[in-house]
Amino acid sequence: MRIKIINPNTHLEGTKRIERVAKAHARSDTEVIAVSPEKGPDAIEGSYDEALAVPGVLEEIKKGIEDGYDGFIIACFLDTGLYAARDLTDKPVIGIGEASMHMACMLGRRFSMLLPAPRWDITYVLAEFVRRYGLEARFASARGIGLGVLDIDKDINKTLEILKEEGTKAILQDGAEVILLGCAGFAELDKKLEKELGVPVIDPVIAALKFMEAILDYGKKTSKISFRLPERLKK
Amino acid sequence: MRIKIINPNTHLEGTKRIERVAKAHARSDTEVIAVSPEKGPDAIEGSYDEALAVPGVLEEIKKGIEDGYDGFIIACFLDTGLYAARDLTDKPVIGIGEASMHMACMLGRRFSMLLPAPRWDITYVLAEFVRRYGLEARFASARGIGLGVLDIDKDINKTLEILKEEGTKAILQDGAEVILLGCAGFAELDKKLEKELGVPVIDPVIAALKFMEAILDYGKKTSKISFRLPERLKK
Amino acid sequence: MRIKIINPNTHLEGTKRIERVAKAHARSDTEVIAVSPEKGPDAIEGSYDEALAVPGVLEEIKKGIEDGYDGFIIACFLDTGLYAARDLTDKPVIGIGEASMHMACMLGRRFSMLLPAPRWDITYVLAEFVRRYGLEARFASARGIGLGVLDIDKDINKTLEILKEEGTKAILQDGAEVILLGCAGFAELDKKLEKELGVPVIDPVIAALKFMEAILDYGKKTSKISFRLPERLKK
Amino acid sequence: MRIKIINPNTHLEGTKRIERVAKAHARSDTEVIAVSPEKGPDAIEGSYDEALAVPGVLEEIKKGIEDGYDGFIIACFLDTGLYAARDLTDKPVIGIGEASMHMACMLGRRFSMLLPAPRWDITYVLAEFVRRYGLEARFASARGIGLGVLDIDKDINKTLEILKEEGTKAILQDGAEVILLGCAGFAELDKKLEKELGVPVIDPVIAALKFMEAILDYGKKTSKISFRLPERLKK
Amino acid sequence: MRIKIINPNTHLEGTKRIERVAKAHARSDTEVIAVSPEKGPDAIEGSYDEALAVPGVLEEIKKGIEDGYDGFIIACFLDTGLYAARDLTDKPVIGIGEASMHMACMLGRRFSMLLPAPRWDITYVLAEFVRRYGLEARFASARGIGLGVLDIDKDINKTLEILKEEGTKAILQDGAEVILLGCAGFAELDKKLEKELGVPVIDPVIAALKFMEAILDYGKKTSKISFRLPERLKK
Amino acid sequence: MRIKIINPNTHLEGTKRIERVAKAHARSDTEVIAVSPEKGPDAIEGSYDEALAVPGVLEEIKKGIEDGYDGFIIACFLDTGLYAARDLTDKPVIGIGEASMHMACMLGRRFSMLLPAPRWDITYVLAEFVRRYGLEARFASARGIGLGVLDIDKDINKTLEILKEEGTKAILQDGAEVILLGCAGFAELDKKLEKELGVPVIDPVIAALKFMEAILDYGKKTSKISFRLPERLKK
Repeated sequence: MRIKIINPNTHLEGTKRIERVAKAHARSDTEVIAVSPEKGPDAIEGSYDEALAVPGVLEEIKKGIEDGYDGFIIACFLDTGLYAARDLTDKPVIGIGEASMHMACMLGRRFSMLLPAPRWDITYVLAEFVRRYGLEARFASARGIGLGVLDIDKDINKTLEILKEEGTKAILQDGAEVILLGCAGFAELDKKLEKELGVPVIDPVIAALKFMEAILDYGKKTSKISFRLPERLKK
Repeated sequence: MRIKIINPNTHLEGTKRIERVAKAHARSDTEVIAVSPEKGPDAIEGSYDEALAVPGVLEEIKKGIEDGYDGFIIACFLDTGLYAARDLTDKPVIGIGEASMHMACMLGRRFSMLLPAPRWDITYVLAEFVRRYGLEARFASARGIGLGVLDIDKDINKTLEILKEEGTKAILQDGAEVILLGCAGFAELDKKLEKELGVPVIDPVIAALKFMEAILDYGKKTSKISFRLPERLKK
Repeated sequence: MRIKIINPNTHLEGTKRIERVAKAHARSDTEVIAVSPEKGPDAIEGSYDEALAVPGVLEEIKKGIEDGYDGFIIACFLDTGLYAARDLTDKPVIGIGEASMHMACMLGRRFSMLLPAPRWDITYVLAEFVRRYGLEARFASARGIGLGVLDIDKDINKTLEILKEEGTKAILQDGAEVILLGCAGFAELDKKLEKELGVPVIDPVIAALKFMEAILDYGKKTSKISFRLPERLKK
Repeated sequence: MRIKIINPNTHLEGTKRIERVAKAHARSDTEVIAVSPEKGPDAIEGSYDEALAVPGVLEEIKKGIEDGYDGFIIACFLDTGLYAARDLTDKPVIGIGEASMHMACMLGRRFSMLLPAPRWDITYVLAEFVRRYGLEARFASARGIGLGVLDIDKDINKTLEILKEEGTKAILQDGAEVILLGCAGFAELDKKLEKELGVPVIDPVIAALKFMEAILDYGKKTSKISFRLPERLKK
Repeated sequence: MRIKIINPNTHLEGTKRIERVAKAHARSDTEVIAVSPEKGPDAIEGSYDEALAVPGVLEEIKKGIEDGYDGFIIACFLDTGLYAARDLTDKPVIGIGEASMHMACMLGRRFSMLLPAPRWDITYVLAEFVRRYGLEARFASARGIGLGVLDIDKDINKTLEILKEEGTKAILQDGAEVILLGCAGFAELDKKLEKELGVPVIDPVIAALKFMEAILDYGKKTSKISFRLPERLKK
Repeated sequence: MRIKIINPNTHLEGTKRIERVAKAHARSDTEVIAVSPEKGPDAIEGSYDEALAVPGVLEEIKKGIEDGYDGFIIACFLDTGLYAARDLTDKPVIGIGEASMHMACMLGRRFSMLLPAPRWDITYVLAEFVRRYGLEARFASARGIGLGVLDIDKDINKTLEILKEEGTKAILQDGAEVILLGCAGFAELDKKLEKELGVPVIDPVIAALKFMEAILDYGKKTSKISFRLPERLKK
C-alpha cells in the first residue's frame, strides 16, 4: 500500500522529520512519503494560517490521486483541510489529530494534549476542535508548554522536562489517562515521555499511519454521502 | 458607519442581490457595499468549495481594512472563513449563519433552516455547523427543498410553494418556531413566506446587517484572545 | 421606534441609571424610556424576588402595549419574567441577559459574567441560567466580586479595581474572551474596564437596546407558536 | 408527618381531586391536605399563567410554615414556583413534575409524558422543562392528546382510549419505557392505563407524595446554599 | 412489605452494618434484611471486582424472588449488577448510587460524592458512572479522602475530620449543595457530617430504602421493555 | 504479534466463524485465535447474559496473559467485560463495538448499527451503549432487523435483503453515512451489503483486529491510571 502524508505547512525540515518518523513505524509493505505544498504558510498557528494552507493541501491530494496513492494523511494536529480533502476522493483521508484521539479512547478514559504556547491561549481553541468530532466527554485538557515552535529543538532536554511537568499536571489535576503530543516538533519524544509519565503517550503521526494501514488493509473508503464534490464540479 | 459585505463566491448576480437587499435594509447613516473575491468558486456547496473560497475572502478583508471599513459581514450561510477573518482584524466580523441563529434565539424557542438540495443530504452537515456555535439545543432541523441553486429563480412561485411546504413540516414535525432562509437565492422571499407560515422568517443577510449596525453603534470589537495573527506574521 | 425598558425591581435610582445609559446609546430616531413596576421587590436577588417581581413586569408590558410601544426590554440580568412577557404580545421582548450572551458569541469564543456576591454562591445558579438558553458551550464562568449592591457605588474606584481583578481571572483561568457586566450597578463602567482588560466588556442594557433596534428595524416579531396566551384568556 | 399540597391554580374541583388521590395513597401516619391559593389563574397553561400563580403559591408556603407543616408539594406538572418556594424554607419542597421523572428513572431507561393539547405545541416546551433538571438523556417525548382540560372528564372512556393510543406511540416510536401523566385531570387513570400499556404509568401527585414521605422519614431538608432568601429579607 | 438488600461484596461486617442502618430507618411495617452473596470478592474496588461480584448478586435476586421479597436494593455505590438484576424480575430493583443521586436532585442544585482513595484516581470513574444515568448536569464532583476502606474505622474522628475537609472543598470549590457518602464504611456518619457542613448529607443505603418503600407503597414495578430476559431463557 | 479473540458466548460455531473472518483479514505476521469461555451463556442478549458471561471472559484473559498473547479482542458488539478485562493487564484490550465506532468516525460523519431483534426494542439500549464512550454526537441510529440470531443463517439472501432495507432507511431517514454490522451472525456480509448500499459497511471483528495490529505495531498499552487491579489483589 502507498500512503502520502501531507504536512500542511512548508517548513521542509518538519516534513522530513515527519517522513522519518513515519518510515520508522511503517510496515515493510507500506510505502510512505511526506510532502509539503509548494506554496503556503511555513507554520500553522491559527485559523488564518489554516485558511491559507488548505488550497496547497488540496493540490497535493489531487496530485496524489493521479499518482495512485491509496490513502492520505494530513499531518497537522488541527487536521487542516480534512473535510475538503475528503470531498475530493473516496480514498481514505485521516487527520493526525482525530487519529490520535480515537486511539487514545481505546487505551484510557480521558486524554490530554500538550502543545506549544501558553495555557490560557489554547485550551478553548482545542476544546472547540475536540467538540467538532464529538469527543468532548473524553477530553481532559489541552496544556501549552510556553515554548515557541523554534525553541522546542534548541534544548531538547529542557523541552522534555517541561512536557513531563505539564503532562504530570494533566494526569493529576485534569484527569488525563493518555497524553497526545500535539506538535510535530515533539516527534521522537513519545517513548521517553511515556517512560517518565507512566501513561501512554501518542505521537499523532504514528497513530494516523497505523490506523491508515489498518483501514487500507480492510479495504474501507470514505463515505461519499456528505463528503463529495458538488455536481457542477464533477466531469 | 461603513460595512463591507463579502459574498465568498464569485457569482456576481448573487452579490448584487445581496447588496440590493442590504441597501434596502440599511439605516440612512450606514454605507454598505457587497463584493465577491476576484478569484474563487462561483458557488459554495461543500467543504471543498469553502476551502478554495477562503483565501479570496481574506484578501477582501485585507483590502477592506485598508479602505477603512468599520465592520465585515461574510455572506454565505456556512460562514465561510469567519474565524480566519477574525484573526486579521479587531473590527467586528459577523457570519450571516451565526447572526440569523442568534436573532432566532430571541424570537422563539427553536429554529429550522431551509436550504436547497435534498433533505437527507444536508441535515447532519448543518447539525455539525450549528454545533460549532454550541446552539444545538435551539436547533430543530435543516430541510432541503430539492431544488438546485439555479432552479430557484426559474419559477419563483414554485420555489415559494416548496418553501412553504417544507417550512410547515419544520413547524409541525420538527418543532421549529422560527425559520431561517439558508440561501442567498431565497432573498426577498422572507416577508411572503412569513405571511404564509405565521412565524418569523429570517433572511440571514439582513440579520447580520442589523446586528452589525448594533455592534458598531455600541463600539464593540472582536476579542483578540484567540482570534489573532501569530506573532511571526505581525509586523 | 419606541422602546420601553422595564426594570423588574422598584429601585428607582437604578431605573434612572438604566434610562440614562439607554438614552445615551439610543439612535436619534429611537424613543426609549425605563420604568419600574408600581409594586414589587426593590432588588432581585434570587428566585423568591423574581417570583414577586414578575406580576409587576407583566403589568408594565400590558400598559406598554396599550401605549403603543414597539418593543420591550427586561432589564434584569436574569431576564425576570421574559417568557411570560412573550406570552402577552407579538412585539419583540428581549432580556438583557440573553442579549448580552448572544452579542458576546459574535465577538469571542467564550464569555464570563461578573456579578456582585461571593463566587461559590452564584456560579451554578448562573450556569443553570445559561443552560436555559442552551449556551453552556460558550460559557466560561460567572464570578462574584463580593460586594453588596449598595457597596458598589460607595467607592467606584475600588469596585473597578475588583472587577479588573476578577475579570483578569476570568480571562486567564476560566478562558473568557468577552466579559459581561451582570448588574445594573456596573453600568457606565464598561468602557473603563474594557481598557483595563483588553477584551470586549458588554453592558447588557446597551446590548439589548441595540439588538432591539436591529430587530425592530427589520420588522421581526416574537414567534407565537409556544409563546402565547391560552385560548381561555383570549377575547 | 404533615404534608401540604399546593395546587397552583384556583380550580377547586381539581384541588379536591388531588387531595382525594393523595389521601388514598398516604400512609396512615401521614396527614395531608391540598389547597389552592386564594387568588390566581384557574388553570396553568403557559408562562403567563405560571407567573400570576406563583405569588399565591408562595403565600400558601408561608402560611404552611406558620402552621407547622413538615413538607410542601407543588401540584402542577410544570413545578410552578418550585425554586422560589425553596428560597422560603428549609423544609423540603417537591414538584410533582420532578418527582415523577426521578421515580421513572428508577423504573426504566426513558420516560414519556402525556398531556392535553396538540403534540406540536408542547414537545419543545416540555423538552426545555426536562432540561432544567438535566434529565434530557432520559426523556423520550412529550405527547399531547388534543383534548382541552375540560373535555378530559366529559367522556372518561374516550380519554382513556386516546391516552392508550398516544402512550403506545410513545413506547413504540419514541422509545418510552415509563409513562408520566402530566395533568391532574388524568388522576385515577394510572392503574387502568398501566394495564393497557404494560409499562409503569406514574401519577405525579402520588410520586411526589411518596417521595416526600421518604425524605421526611429520613429527616432531610432543602440545601440552603443557593436556595435561600437574600440577606435584606431576613429578619 | 419485605425488602432484601444485597451487599455485592462478601465482607459480612459491612453487610451487618448495612442491615443495622436499614433496620434503624425502616418503617414499622417494613421487613428488611441484608445479605452478601455466598461467593465473590470481599470488596468492590473497580470493574474487575464488579464483574466477579455480579453472578453472586444475581443468585441472591433469584433466591429473593422465590422467597417472595417485594423489592431489592443493591448496596454498592456503583450499583453493581443493577441492570442484570432488573432483567430477572419486574419487582423494583434500586441501586444505592442512583437513589442517592435522585434524592439529592430534589434537595439542591448539584451534588458531590465523597469516597475513599485519592482524588485524581476516582473523579473520572465516577463522572462516567453519573453519566450512565444522564445526571452529569447535576454532578459537582467526586472527591476521595485518601483512606483505605480498612482505615476508615480505625480512627472514626479522623475520618470525620477528613470528610469535613473534603466536603467543605466540594461546597466551596466544586459547587456542591448536597453531599453523598459513597461508601458503606461511612454509614452512621451522615448526621454528624451534616451538622458540620450545613448542607444535606445522604447515606445512600437509607435513600434507597426510603425510595423503595415509596415505590412499593405506590405499587410500581420495573418496566420490562428493555429490562427483561431473552426469549430463550424464559420457560 | 499474537492476538487472542474472546467470543464471550459459548456458541462455538460463532467462535469458529469469528476466527475464520479474523484469519482471513490478519496480516501474515499476525497469529490470531478465537476462543469461547469454558462456561457461560451461549448467547449475549441483554445485561443478564452479559453478567454471566464476564467471569468466563476474564478467565480467558488470564490464560491469555500466561500464554503470552500481545493483545485481546472481546468479540461481542456490546464489548462484554471490556473494562474488567482492562483492569487485569496492560496489554491492549479492544472491544469490537468501540473499534467499529472509532473506525466509522474516520470514514463518515455519522454511523448506524444494524442488529437482530425489533427496532423499538434496541434503539435506546444501544444509544446508552454509545453514550458510554461519549460518541453520541456521531450516532445516527440502531436498527433491528427483526430476525432471531438463529434465523439469520437460514436464508442468507433474505437476511441480506432485510439488511439492505434497514440500511437504506438508516441512510435516508436517520442520516447514517457508515453502517456497522452489530452481530457476529452478519459476518462475511459486509462486502455484499457495501455494494448494495454504496456506503462503508464495517464488520466490527475486522475493525478491532486491524486496530489491534495498529496499536501493537506502535507498542501502545492500556493506561493503568483507572484501569487496574485494587492493591489488595496485587501480589
